[in-house]
Amino acid sequence: MRKAIKIVTIGGGSSYTPELMEGFIKRYDEMPISEIWLVDIEEGKEKVEIIGKLAQRMWDATPYNVQVFTTLDRREALKGADFVTTQFRVGLLDARIKDERIPSLHGMLGQETNGAGGMFKAFRTIPVIREIVEDMKELCPVAWLINFTNPSGIITEAVIKHFGWKKCIGLCNVPVIAMMNEPKVIRKETSELNYQFAGLNHFHWHKVFDTEGNEVTGQLIDHINEKNGGTPANIFQAEFSLELLHSMNLLPCGYHRYYYAEREMLEHSIEEFKKGGTRAEQMKEVEASLFEIYKNPDLNKKPEEINKRGGAFYSDAACECISAIYNNKGIHMVVSTQNNGAIPCLNSDSIVEISCRISDKGAEPIAWGEMGSFEKGHLQIMKAMEECTINAALLGDYGMALQAFTINPLVQKGSEAKQVLDELLVVHEKYLPQFKEKIAELKKQGVASKDPVVIELMKNGH
Amino acid sequence: MRKAIKIVTIGGGSSYTPELMEGFIKRYDEMPISEIWLVDIEEGKEKVEIIGKLAQRMWDATPYNVQVFTTLDRREALKGADFVTTQFRVGLLDARIKDERIPSLHGMLGQETNGAGGMFKAFRTIPVIREIVEDMKELCPVAWLINFTNPSGIITEAVIKHFGWKKCIGLCNVPVIAMMNEPKVIRKETSELNYQFAGLNHFHWHKVFDTEGNEVTGQLIDHINEKNGGTPANIFQAEFSLELLHSMNLLPCGYHRYYYAEREMLEHSIEEFKKGGTRAEQMKEVEASLFEIYKNPDLNKKPEEINKRGGAFYSDAACECISAIYNNKGIHMVVSTQNNGAIPCLNSDSIVEISCRISDKGAEPIAWGEMGSFEKGHLQIMKAMEECTINAALLGDYGMALQAFTINPLVQKGSEAKQVLDELLVVHEKYLPQFKEKIAELKKQGVASKDPVVIELMKNGH
Amino acid sequence: MRKAIKIVTIGGGSSYTPELMEGFIKRYDEMPISEIWLVDIEEGKEKVEIIGKLAQRMWDATPYNVQVFTTLDRREALKGADFVTTQFRVGLLDARIKDERIPSLHGMLGQETNGAGGMFKAFRTIPVIREIVEDMKELCPVAWLINFTNPSGIITEAVIKHFGWKKCIGLCNVPVIAMMNEPKVIRKETSELNYQFAGLNHFHWHKVFDTEGNEVTGQLIDHINEKNGGTPANIFQAEFSLELLHSMNLLPCGYHRYYYAEREMLEHSIEEFKKGGTRAEQMKEVEASLFEIYKNPDLNKKPEEINKRGGAFYSDAACECISAIYNNKGIHMVVSTQNNGAIPCLNSDSIVEISCRISDKGAEPIAWGEMGSFEKGHLQIMKAMEECTINAALLGDYGMALQAFTINPLVQKGSEAKQVLDELLVVHEKYLPQFKEKIAELKKQGVASKDPVVIELMKNGH
Amino acid sequence: MRKAIKIVTIGGGSSYTPELMEGFIKRYDEMPISEIWLVDIEEGKEKVEIIGKLAQRMWDATPYNVQVFTTLDRREALKGADFVTTQFRVGLLDARIKDERIPSLHGMLGQETNGAGGMFKAFRTIPVIREIVEDMKELCPVAWLINFTNPSGIITEAVIKHFGWKKCIGLCNVPVIAMMNEPKVIRKETSELNYQFAGLNHFHWHKVFDTEGNEVTGQLIDHINEKNGGTPANIFQAEFSLELLHSMNLLPCGYHRYYYAEREMLEHSIEEFKKGGTRAEQMKEVEASLFEIYKNPDLNKKPEEINKRGGAFYSDAACECISAIYNNKGIHMVVSTQNNGAIPCLNSDSIVEISCRISDKGAEPIAWGEMGSFEKGHLQIMKAMEECTINAALLGDYGMALQAFTINPLVQKGSEAKQVLDELLVVHEKYLPQFKEKIAELKKQGVASKDPVVIELMKNGH
Repeated sequence: MRKAIKIVTIGGGSSYTPELMEGFIKRYDEMPISEIWLVDIEEGKEKVEIIGKLAQRMWDATPYNVQVFTTLDRREALKGADFVTTQFRVGLLDARIKDERIPSLHGMLGQETNGAGGMFKAFRTIPVIREIVEDMKELCPVAWLINFTNPSGIITEAVIKHFGWKKCIGLCNVPVIAMMNEPKVIRKETSELNYQFAGLNHFHWHKVFDTEGNEVTGQLIDHINEKNGGTPANIFQAEFSLELLHSMNLLPCGYHRYYYAEREMLEHSIEEFKKGGTRAEQMKEVEASLFEIYKNPDLNKKPEEINKRGGAFYSDAACECISAIYNNKGIHMVVSTQNNGAIPCLNSDSIVEISCRISDKGAEPIAWGEMGSFEKGHLQIMKAMEECTINAALLGDYGMALQAFTINPLVQKGSEAKQVLDELLVVHEKYLPQFKEKIAELKKQGVASKDPVVIELMKNGH
Repeated sequence: MRKAIKIVTIGGGSSYTPELMEGFIKRYDEMPISEIWLVDIEEGKEKVEIIGKLAQRMWDATPYNVQVFTTLDRREALKGADFVTTQFRVGLLDARIKDERIPSLHGMLGQETNGAGGMFKAFRTIPVIREIVEDMKELCPVAWLINFTNPSGIITEAVIKHFGWKKCIGLCNVPVIAMMNEPKVIRKETSELNYQFAGLNHFHWHKVFDTEGNEVTGQLIDHINEKNGGTPANIFQAEFSLELLHSMNLLPCGYHRYYYAEREMLEHSIEEFKKGGTRAEQMKEVEASLFEIYKNPDLNKKPEEINKRGGAFYSDAACECISAIYNNKGIHMVVSTQNNGAIPCLNSDSIVEISCRISDKGAEPIAWGEMGSFEKGHLQIMKAMEECTINAALLGDYGMALQAFTINPLVQKGSEAKQVLDELLVVHEKYLPQFKEKIAELKKQGVASKDPVVIELMKNGH
Repeated sequence: MRKAIKIVTIGGGSSYTPELMEGFIKRYDEMPISEIWLVDIEEGKEKVEIIGKLAQRMWDATPYNVQVFTTLDRREALKGADFVTTQFRVGLLDARIKDERIPSLHGMLGQETNGAGGMFKAFRTIPVIREIVEDMKELCPVAWLINFTNPSGIITEAVIKHFGWKKCIGLCNVPVIAMMNEPKVIRKETSELNYQFAGLNHFHWHKVFDTEGNEVTGQLIDHINEKNGGTPANIFQAEFSLELLHSMNLLPCGYHRYYYAEREMLEHSIEEFKKGGTRAEQMKEVEASLFEIYKNPDLNKKPEEINKRGGAFYSDAACECISAIYNNKGIHMVVSTQNNGAIPCLNSDSIVEISCRISDKGAEPIAWGEMGSFEKGHLQIMKAMEECTINAALLGDYGMALQAFTINPLVQKGSEAKQVLDELLVVHEKYLPQFKEKIAELKKQGVASKDPVVIELMKNGH
Repeated sequence: MRKAIKIVTIGGGSSYTPELMEGFIKRYDEMPISEIWLVDIEEGKEKVEIIGKLAQRMWDATPYNVQVFTTLDRREALKGADFVTTQFRVGLLDARIKDERIPSLHGMLGQETNGAGGMFKAFRTIPVIREIVEDMKELCPVAWLINFTNPSGIITEAVIKHFGWKKCIGLCNVPVIAMMNEPKVIRKETSELNYQFAGLNHFHWHKVFDTEGNEVTGQLIDHINEKNGGTPANIFQAEFSLELLHSMNLLPCGYHRYYYAEREMLEHSIEEFKKGGTRAEQMKEVEASLFEIYKNPDLNKKPEEINKRGGAFYSDAACECISAIYNNKGIHMVVSTQNNGAIPCLNSDSIVEISCRISDKGAEPIAWGEMGSFEKGHLQIMKAMEECTINAALLGDYGMALQAFTINPLVQKGSEAKQVLDELLVVHEKYLPQFKEKIAELKKQGVASKDPVVIELMKNGH
């Protein structure tokens, strides 16, 4: 008999955690959990305690005897863990506000995981995930790390390729949402379609077949601009060119709109910013109200309101992935894992997001084969951008950060891009120890953000 | 509801056919067959009729209403087929006798699918499979071709890469036997282990994990020289060096003995040949007695004696593969399919034998990733040999045939190898239309086999 | 003794031709030319005659007996040619005006060889170069084709990879100018430095060593923003970030400014356009005055004024290349040729612009080896863009043209990009037979340019 | 003005050294040497002193003032060296005797650089070259290392890829001999042909063009079996199959006979061994008589008798290479250097032997492009063998040594190959510190050579 499972969630104070609990609860019979540890940092103490209590109430409302612990001591939590999930945000939503405001103020895309903001999220996260991996090597050397901290593909590449932790799987809700919503547009159930995905996190394509082996990709393309298709709610739905998609005969992910409808997405982003500030600022309000709800001592299940957050189904995917490993299910899931040749135009040791067989061996990617010039060239530049980003983050190398900015298709290159880079470095000083010297130099040169919102955040120690 | 299935078996007069029938019968509930067509050529007429009657008796003994047709008209049979299986042998066992005797007489390995004999089997088969594919394009354009004609990997490469029929899967019983027999040596069931295979047909390796994700490859290596492990019965079990296998930490297939214990295998082969002729000659006797059994009008199931033939489980694997496609099972099987990057050191459009997910989309290879120098170099030279063989077979190019012989690790290069090549060309004249001119030239030069057995066969029109 | 050489120049009416003549004259002793044929089309008749007379006057002023022929019959000229040079512009400068105006009017870069304009130049040129190659196969099957028609790399790829003419070398003046001008900034002569280039046409990098093997790339980077460095005069010199270049430790070509200083280059381009129209319009004036000068019956050498044209040194490079082949010199030149692995991150059969050894075997690229992520990702997307462009041009495939536009880093993707594509298709109808049906459809939908300049050109039959 | 050069020769007591001196003398005007240091070990003291005196006499007979030093202190010699040449033999000819006798006694090829012997030469040499590189890093960090210690390609790969010394070039006389002798067979001079080589050391092919760009490879193939063609004198000239070579349209090197005429070469090798012992034993006698000649105090030039040794032209190639670097010549030479993609079917960081441009930057390989299946598969397995050999040598890994033996096409795999491996390990104990533990284990198991010659050598401390 397999032993009962110890789960550790880093960033346990996240508003997503109730969904994670619900996912574990509904799979308890196939996956007997004994303890769940929610870990957070000093700044997240209040939130993790609210969540911890709600989580315990959720379990107490079931027939299962599972104990939820909250702690600020990551090392205590990690001891003997079987699965570690990571869903933390270095610098909290305040950091995201800066990531989104500063590019917007310079007329560039202000987005959490794409463009300048996404690269800075990586710069802040990589030093922290490195420490987590170092702790895991010591305290839970056989555990699986299920990462859904964004940018999920980049973080997973850092963990597997650079920090050497092979038992890591990166998750994202984008493929999940596509597989849930797309079938409806052609009046099918998910189970009636056969999916194959390949690409990078937030930059993948898929093709779809019915159960008689006929490809239905073309039919799905015809519906792609409809509302409530496969695109996550947080992405503006600029129209895809159907002629472009039919010529590829592939379904893009929602994030491809930033690349295929660059101008519309940028214009919309700037317009929204001018009207109502950044999405991060909106999320901060949503979160505050969510935590009010979570505090309710009578609440013992995941509240509906959670779906206003962009990350729906992330946590359920994590639970399903853990169960597939634990139960050696051999099922199809789309995750970030080591390429191993599955996408031949990328290096074998690169991390890709791809259809996998998930079993107790982890994720085994299904080989996609050669891509057309268009997809290939795009993937290669995006992977190059990821590599430059990781190298800059690892070494605190300013030149490499400039390379990452210059190669990112969503940054408009030139002296203003450098200005965005410099301001972001300075305003994130607290979370970028690796760039310490360069930041000091920039500050000496007078680099600073003039944005009142950012200035206010910094006054308050963020 | 899915329509009932029409199966066509090319080479239906093969002694394996009763196993194929048994496989279909036991899967009838999940895969409702309506008709089975057994196709053969004039020379196989008597045999296919015996088999046809036995097959019909087998179905008649079940509750299922399935009709078995026999015909010499391939085109009639192929019309509207859903699945076509190929298990024919161009030139019958008499051709195999020549393939095995002539190298043996020159002190080289006389074996059906490896070395000189295997290449000639390909030379004879490729022109015929090309015609079959041409017929299929016209008569059953959506059918799947399930090939288990040897050399299975080479034939599958010709079909997919050169003749453009993508819906083709190559099968072999070697991985099946390994997965059936190996677990016993460590007191496990097949279902308790998780397998991953990669390589080429008759030249692959695998690694094995238990259901908790622990690798047990090393334990299985320790038992590899025991009898009744994973090696097919027709291969002499020269000892593997355990130190070699442990340094690779991979389980070889049985055929690797020809490459890792070359000298012992060659000596044994020559010795056996001197004692009792070739395996082909023995098989001819086995077949004759099998057909005597098949004629028995009271026999209505697969007789036990069939297992004396080397190809056990081939046919069952074919039935399982067909069912996995028909029922979109998504199961793990090891088949020959297009690489697609799964083995990065080979071209994406090469055919490899590899762990796949089998669904209604066909076989999707699971990416293996980079190989060590030893496995990589070996695979690459074997694929090069396959490519030279196919090119020679397609073009009737003598220089390319010399290249294939010179690069094949189981041929001792030099003027005697050329002599083997020349004699084999001449004695197989009837089945090698593409080499017509070169054969005429060789005959003019007096090239001929002096072997009385071969001479006798040729007198009789073989 | 080697026979005297017959040179054929397609697009002989180009204003560059006098430079070409000068190049041949000064190399006559090592490369004895007998005849030069200047070929042009009906629309260029007047110009080619002016040039033909000037060219003959230039030769008559030398001791050499060389005859210059002008003709509108390409086939007559090609018979028995030894070297064919191509320097034509399909649609003349009027087509370039459209290529530059239409993107500019939509706020995008209006440039001859980069962005939307460059792709359309390829769309128009590829059908013509295909006909030239077909004529050469018939009429001068051993001739070398020295192409300096832009986009030089794309055209060379079409010729070698798609039309199968291996004896083709693509030339560009950008590396020549860099090697001529750069040394001065560190007070060296060209002969005192050792150069290595790799990349694509208008998208390559180089590194430089002194004659003791010490790398001086870094020193040269420090001077790159100075005037009269290695950048061609027609490119606005937005500043390169020295920190970026030092982190790569490579010297970019002048055209990299469009990619590394995208915003400045775009702003400058739009500003210039608003002030004075396109560069094409300016060039038209320059050309008109050049031809006035060329008409002067007393002129018998290349006039100084030619240097106002952007293409200086192009023609001299062509003469040097021809001489290096003829005389088996084995010298270093930077040309477009088949990659052959020299840049491992691109396909072996792609065309690259790279340091080569030029001998009677043609151009042999010097292997550069692996590139860093930044250069690699950039090269790969640019090559993908070239491939999409060529495929669109070959097939008249609108979807592929959309792919080319969407992957080109200098096009701002979205519905406006599609509008630019559509307008360009319509206004270039005369030169785009392969897109005939799509253009008819677009016209039916009312697609047209509203630009008065373009409308005027079209009225006049351009 | 460039400074005068200090040359250091490791293994200065080699009988080749007079040729090296001659090479330097004839190039003195272009390459002014000040000092030459001949380094050897205690066992070679007498020889290096004889050579040192001869070398000084050779210089004294010229107008040049060059001093020759002999020393057993490598570190003293290396200080401030400009060029270091390596031509040592670990274990002297006695070790080679064992390398050749033991495989021969087991019916395998006994050859110095191919098969079992070549791998053991690498096992012994790699630990020593590592120490040399470590000394160079400290004592002459800008020096070039010109290696002609065999197996030259493997040693160069160890130096560049594993020990990180990029300024290393590997030399061999095989291409030199081919380029010197081949032209004669078609009545041409070397300077009238244009050569392109690619492959690995002792395993490369070439193609040849005349000065008008016409390929003459086919003509040269027709003469390849003639005496005094391009094959070094030490290799038995079993006949190549012209049909094989024409189908490749490439000229093989002389060592390819071991692979393309395996059986004849093996039979000849065994026969020669039975008649007269190994080539090493013959060489020992040749060397003894050479040193008698060298002692002659009146001798002041390279004696003719040196050409009896197999390594003619090795040293002259080394001098030419050094001069090409020193003088930034940009000439064509065939050397072992980092692939950089020039042979795309091998890794970019592998060492290959290939046509290069030699300048002050070192060797720049000329990209060859894709190879046919036959050459590709062969090259890949040979490179895999080299990699296994190097890994075994670096780590003292017995499993990896078994892999090297099992993948080497010239070793007959099986238990007898393992016996050869074990005996060679034991008899070379003195020079294989990295395999110390395994050797102790083997000795405990009673592994030993029963060959009286080997036993005698070991008694005498070899």
